[in-house]
This record gives sequence, structure tokens and C-alpha cells, in this order.
Amino acid sequence: MRKIKLYIAMTIDGYIASLDGHIDFLNDYGKDGLDYGYAKFLETIGTVILGRKTYDQVIGFSSNYPYEKQTSYVLTTSKNNPKINHIIFKNNIDDIISDIKDKQGKDIFLVGGAKTIKIMMDKNLIDEIHLSIIPKTLGEGIPCFLKHQNLSTYQVLDTNTYKDGIVQIIYRKI
Amino acid sequence: MRKIKLYIAMTIDGYIASLDGHIDFLNDYGKDGLDYGYAKFLETIGTVILGRKTYDQVIGFSSNYPYEKQTSYVLTTSKNNPKINHIIFKNNIDDIISDIKDKQGKDIFLVGGAKTIKIMMDKNLIDEIHLSIIPKTLGEGIPCFLKHQNLSTYQVLDTNTYKDGIVQIIYRKI
Repeated sequence: MRKIKLYIAMTIDGYIASLDGHIDFLNDYGKDGLDYGYAKFLETIGTVILGRKTYDQVIGFSSNYPYEKQTSYVLTTSKNNPKINHIIFKNNIDDIISDIKDKQGKDIFLVGGAKTIKIMMDKNLIDEIHLSIIPKTLGEGIPCFLKHQNLSTYQVLDTNTYKDGIVQIIYRKI
Repeated sequence: MRKIKLYIAMTIDGYIASLDGHIDFLNDYGKDGLDYGYAKFLETIGTVILGRKTYDQVIGFSSNYPYEKQTSYVLTTSKNNPKINHIIFKNNIDDIISDIKDKQGKDIFLVGGAKTIKIMMDKNLIDEIHLSIIPKTLGEGIPCFLKHQNLSTYQVLDTNTYKDGIVQIIYRKI
């Protein structure tokens, strides 16, 4: 079965963005060719899931949508959504999952953000967490893990300590 | 100068205890002689700092107070405190710090809990974070890092992945 993988960066104190949604604290990273295994990870991915706010941020960052090679599902409360090739807007996570989970294909990349992670944690849908811990504290911000309903135990598949201080831990749910 | 070191275990989603203060999720760990470098760490310590609730928990766990070899400072709002050898009750973190920081001696171990960590993060007093990440999600609980005022960057001194899935990262504030 296709795995759902959260691949995300958070600070030591657990934030994925500042309160206003900025991720300026990431600017110090990804230099000297460091990609934290991202290109290799993306090769395993056939489908991405994004919350609407995250989708809007992603298309705001760049003129080229970064998931052109994958099918994207955007979780949104809006009923009026654009028609875009390979980008499917849905109002309900169950509709997304029933669309993709049992189909053959590569794995599924949960991009974020916090609300979508919470919804998927609540439903125990996340198989792997690829967690890059940014060696900073922010003090406040948008948490990676909002209060959710998921008491799970994980095994560590891999750990990497990068020279810029990012520690990446790859967890698989047991 | 003596360093102040937070040595603590938190879940992947950042909790140090359940909402009611229990740490049952730690019961699966510390087996087969694994001590996560704790004995070696404690050798570097001359003084411990605990919040009052954490102190009450610690003395409740065991008949032998585990920090007999160190001087303990307990941060409390109470004005009526017991007189115990080597255990000093204070109402203000600044009084504790002025007591110990410039004295010669071994390093200082911040045991917790969340409120005391927050107070010390706010004042930028923590030099090292020895963070053991428990490979579990709790969904809710007492966060390791309450909202605080500390934008800091850290370097990674060491990383250890233990066979039971605990990943320990030792950070030093830059």
C-alpha cells in the first residue's frame, strides 16, 4: 500500500512558521548544495497533499509549481476552485484518501500545513514522519503538531545530522 | 562560567507529560541498561534547578532524593517552605541565578518543568539543551516549550540514536 509521508522542518520548540506564516528562519539553510535528502525523497512520491494556505504559499514562492510531476490534492473549505491540470481541490480529507490510497502508484507526500497535519493525525493516516529539526527556537509560531488525537509509537528508520545543525529523523509508525 | 543545561525528554509532538502530569509514556524506555548518557551528564553537574511541581514529583517517585550530591534550588511561589539540607527554596529565578551563576563549580542542571523552562528561556539563561526525543506522539499534554521569548540559534554538539528509538540531540546556544 502507498505510504503517506509527512516531510517537514520544525524548530527545536516545534514551530513550522512564525505566527504570521513566515518561514524566514529557514533562509539560513539549504546552502552549499545541502538538500536534506529531499530530491531522493521526492523520487518516491506520486501524489502530494497540501492544505489550501500552504498551496497558496507554494504558488506564491515560485512561478514554477514544484509538484508538476505529481498529482496534487488541495484540502480546502472553498467550493469555488480553479480548474488546473493535475491539481484537484477537495473539501474533505476522506474524499482525497478514497481517491488515492488504494490506487497503485508511488507514495504520498503530505506537505502541510498545521491544520492539514492535525486532520490527518486525528485520522491516524500518516505512515512516516520525515522531521528536519532546525537548530533554532522561535518562542512562538504555528506549531507543527496542533493538539490532535493520535497516540502512536514510531521506529527510527534513519537519522542524519547535517553540518548546518539540522538533524533529520525519519520515523515510521509501528 | 558555569553552564545551565536543560536535560529533558519530550515526545515527537513536543510534550514532556500528559495533561494530568503523568509520564507513563516513558515506561517503555531506560531498559537494557540504557541511560542515554545521563550518569555521565550528572557527573558534570553541581547544582540542579527544579520548579516546585517537578520537585514534588521527584520526591514522590523515590524515597531517595536523586540529587543528594548536588545543591538544589526549587523555584516556588510559596513563602512557607521546608528547611532541608542542600535544598534551597526561592521565589524568584533572579535570586537563584545571582546565587549560583558566578560561583565556581560544576554546571547547572535545569530539570524542569514547563513553567520553569519558560521563565529561563524568557531570560535567555539556558546554554545547552540535551533533548531526548521519545518516538511517540501524545496528541496533547504539557509542552516542553511553552510560548516564550527566545529567538536563539544552536549548534549541535552531539547526536545519538538509541536502539529503542530515542534520538538525543545535544545543542549549545550560539
